[in-house]
Amino acid sequence: MSAINSLANIRIVLIQTSHPGNIGSAARAMKTMGLSELYLVNPKSFPDEQANTMSSSATDILENVVVVESLQGALIDCRLVVGTSARHERSLAWDILEPRECAEQLVKQAQTAKVAVVFGRESSGLTNDELALCHHLVHIPTNPDYSSLNLASAVQILSYECRLALLTRLDGAANKVSGEDITEEVVTADAMESYYKHLELAMIESKFLDPENPKHLMTRLRRLYGRVNLTPSELNILRGMLSSFLKIKK
Amino acid sequence: MSAINSLANIRIVLIQTSHPGNIGSAARAMKTMGLSELYLVNPKSFPDEQANTMSSSATDILENVVVVESLQGALIDCRLVVGTSARHERSLAWDILEPRECAEQLVKQAQTAKVAVVFGRESSGLTNDELALCHHLVHIPTNPDYSSLNLASAVQILSYECRLALLTRLDGAANKVSGEDITEEVVTADAMESYYKHLELAMIESKFLDPENPKHLMTRLRRLYGRVNLTPSELNILRGMLSSFLKIKK
Repeated sequence: MSAINSLANIRIVLIQTSHPGNIGSAARAMKTMGLSELYLVNPKSFPDEQANTMSSSATDILENVVVVESLQGALIDCRLVVGTSARHERSLAWDILEPRECAEQLVKQAQTAKVAVVFGRESSGLTNDELALCHHLVHIPTNPDYSSLNLASAVQILSYECRLALLTRLDGAANKVSGEDITEEVVTADAMESYYKHLELAMIESKFLDPENPKHLMTRLRRLYGRVNLTPSELNILRGMLSSFLKIKK
Repeated sequence: MSAINSLANIRIVLIQTSHPGNIGSAARAMKTMGLSELYLVNPKSFPDEQANTMSSSATDILENVVVVESLQGALIDCRLVVGTSARHERSLAWDILEPRECAEQLVKQAQTAKVAVVFGRESSGLTNDELALCHHLVHIPTNPDYSSLNLASAVQILSYECRLALLTRLDGAANKVSGEDITEEVVTADAMESYYKHLELAMIESKFLDPENPKHLMTRLRRLYGRVNLTPSELNILRGMLSSFLKIKK
């Protein structure tokens, strides 16, 4: 039963969408797969007649859209945040997932918490600051000679994979009722942000990080801790340790 | 190499499409996944400006479209024909495939022959006469309360599954020789042990860890860092950070 509801915990976040028609098509794509929660970060035009037209009859999703001004605002209560990327972010050695394994993780975490899949602008995708807020990236494999995947099509594919992952999970659960793997509690994105601030401060104070020349240090640490899925008690240890290090001075 | 060409042998057939925009969107969806052969059976309007617009720059596919007057005409040279169905055609006891297994069969057969995936009308799907020409049906799992999958979205999902099936096949064939999934270097157990010693020392010095009453702190940190699979450069950052924290004192 909770597995069914897990799709309701998967939030689709669209950043600065230029074409309102894409918002409508994305809503339709979501609904065909059983997703329902849509957040828009600074859309160019919303509400918009074009969005309604393209949504077919997925108007309930459009009526419940939450419009926010920053990506952070869309992620506050999310435990897992996945950014979609058209490129392989090789230079930063991001942890890049295939849609299938990404969907498995989303559906798993969504059984007990909100999770988000973030889609960037039609033309230019996600900025580095936005990427930094993501725990993982997902890349939909496309034709290297023509990777111009429409925004709503990308939403369609990832929503489809989430539905498949759910069905697979339900199948598995039905086949072996007993051994449901207990999802361990994981800290929220918000708590992680506070930790990163604490960490950055500590590194600046100890002169390990030069704010004038940060050298991707925070990005790399975000990536490292982003893939650990820290439990609240582990985060407490890390923060306590940081505080004690900073007190050495006194 | 022949596996690459197999996508070129997968023909998409659209029957009596009402909205020319859908033809353009379908062409774009196909091209993003590396498919190229599009047949139209009695389209309402083609060529059409709306199709060009929606194709983005997949115009080469539209220029090479073959328009025919009957489904039979679109299937003459095909070894395997799969029809898409929004419903489960239970009454007919059809052999209904999941998109994934369907794509595997298509890609496999397409290595040596033409194969086709047939999409029915936007409103009413395939007629019984058309179904009779199909060897299998494929059903994309959708929300039972809202299965209104857009035509181009259905083309997108099946094309995507074909691309995945091809990549899986290539992976298997090359035994993962090629560079898509570069397994990142992970530090040795030895290096991790040195890090844990360093960490323990730092925690004792900062009085965060009381050697008389360690409270499983090291065990918990080992468990945390043990599951991250640190890369050597990440370990360098962590050790550099520790050293700088310890120097705050001076």
